[in-house]
Amino acid sequence: MSQPRFRNWQAIQDEVLRRIHARDWPPGHVIPNEVDLAAEFGCARATVNRALRALAEAGMLERRRKAGTRVALHPVSRATVDIPVIRQEIEDRGQSYTYRMFSRKIARPPVSIQARLCPDSPVDCLHVTALHLASGVAYVFEDRWINLATVPAAANQNFDTISANEWLLATVPYTHGDISFTAEAAAGAEADLLGTARGAPVFVIDRTTWDHDRAITTVRLSYAPGYRIRTSVGTPVSV
Amino acid sequence: MSQPRFRNWQAIQDEVLRRIHARDWPPGHVIPNEVDLAAEFGCARATVNRALRALAEAGMLERRRKAGTRVALHPVSRATVDIPVIRQEIEDRGQSYTYRMFSRKIARPPVSIQARLCPDSPVDCLHVTALHLASGVAYVFEDRWINLATVPAAANQNFDTISANEWLLATVPYTHGDISFTAEAAAGAEADLLGTARGAPVFVIDRTTWDHDRAITTVRLSYAPGYRIRTSVGTPVSV
Repeated sequence: MSQPRFRNWQAIQDEVLRRIHARDWPPGHVIPNEVDLAAEFGCARATVNRALRALAEAGMLERRRKAGTRVALHPVSRATVDIPVIRQEIEDRGQSYTYRMFSRKIARPPVSIQARLCPDSPVDCLHVTALHLASGVAYVFEDRWINLATVPAAANQNFDTISANEWLLATVPYTHGDISFTAEAAAGAEADLLGTARGAPVFVIDRTTWDHDRAITTVRLSYAPGYRIRTSVGTPVSV
Repeated sequence: MSQPRFRNWQAIQDEVLRRIHARDWPPGHVIPNEVDLAAEFGCARATVNRALRALAEAGMLERRRKAGTRVALHPVSRATVDIPVIRQEIEDRGQSYTYRMFSRKIARPPVSIQARLCPDSPVDCLHVTALHLASGVAYVFEDRWINLATVPAAANQNFDTISANEWLLATVPYTHGDISFTAEAAAGAEADLLGTARGAPVFVIDRTTWDHDRAITTVRLSYAPGYRIRTSVGTPVSV
């Protein structure tokens, strides 16, 4: 008897990928259902399901409840980015973490911030700016507004020893958030604090988080030069 | 009879999140198994599984085959970034796509590129530079090296009408890739092509892809000012 060709889900994934790339199954093609594929490959349906799920997560297949599974019309590279607490990110690099708060005041936010935190009617917010350092060197500048209508307890926090970043993650649950990455020119005070020239390129993360429909906070994190987000793309490797 | 409190997996997810944030289940705490939770919540085990899986994908729980499920010691915000073919990305913005190739030559790559494509011994590679335009305006500059030992067919491609980005994705399967995001200062020729000042901040994506252990290509994509990657974080919203 010959060895079965499809011993595991990775072997099935490779075969499905081969058919996609050979255009046996072109973009938009509805592929056979799991039961038929399991019969063809001589394996359990769960094994086929595992392979198709991995390919769908990687963006190669589109699974539709009723219309079946088809080859993606426009396959994308799908990358997962993990964004830890800043203290943790610095300690994971083997560096020591320190934190310096610069300002803290309650105020009506500017219109651009209101649009994110309180689009219906302006409310008082807590504005905190702070620098996070890695082994004594500026790592990221935090410019944050906290919605006091959603998080009244923030008004009682000094944020001089624990950062707003860490306090919020530890105490205020959020359901979802918007996040974006850009390259921007370092503005005056920000450039000075980050130890870079004014106008130098800085990597910026903008993030706004909500608890259901109530906005919690919006933050602009600008990283000192050299910051790099690393991740990976593609289907799982079968070796 | 009262309404059941946990009608669906989202309600269970909210309750698990509440316990985590209330420190009923502190970081590192091993939570009850699915069977016990299903009994407590009065629902099917599959419903509990769905809720725990969503929380694990969001980085709030860590699931271990034998040790059970525990609250993450260092919860992270986990974001998924989709990176489509450049033509598709531009057309998805409702803009027209054009492409202009600048250079194409076969050469031994510099050491920094060899380290990615052929670390064991140098091989000939195809070096292609090109500009992708959105409605006639510079969008992203592509600086790519293709490993001809892995992709010999690339030597026969002109890349004057179809970009290397699109040709590779359509014809050369990759198993996995490394990707990184940085902010960099626009260098001379790159700045001119992108229509920005030299030294202006540009968003850069570096990507290297492999077919199993054979490197296919490495590319540096530098985007014209204003480029922003948008995504979302957090657990799915239950409204």
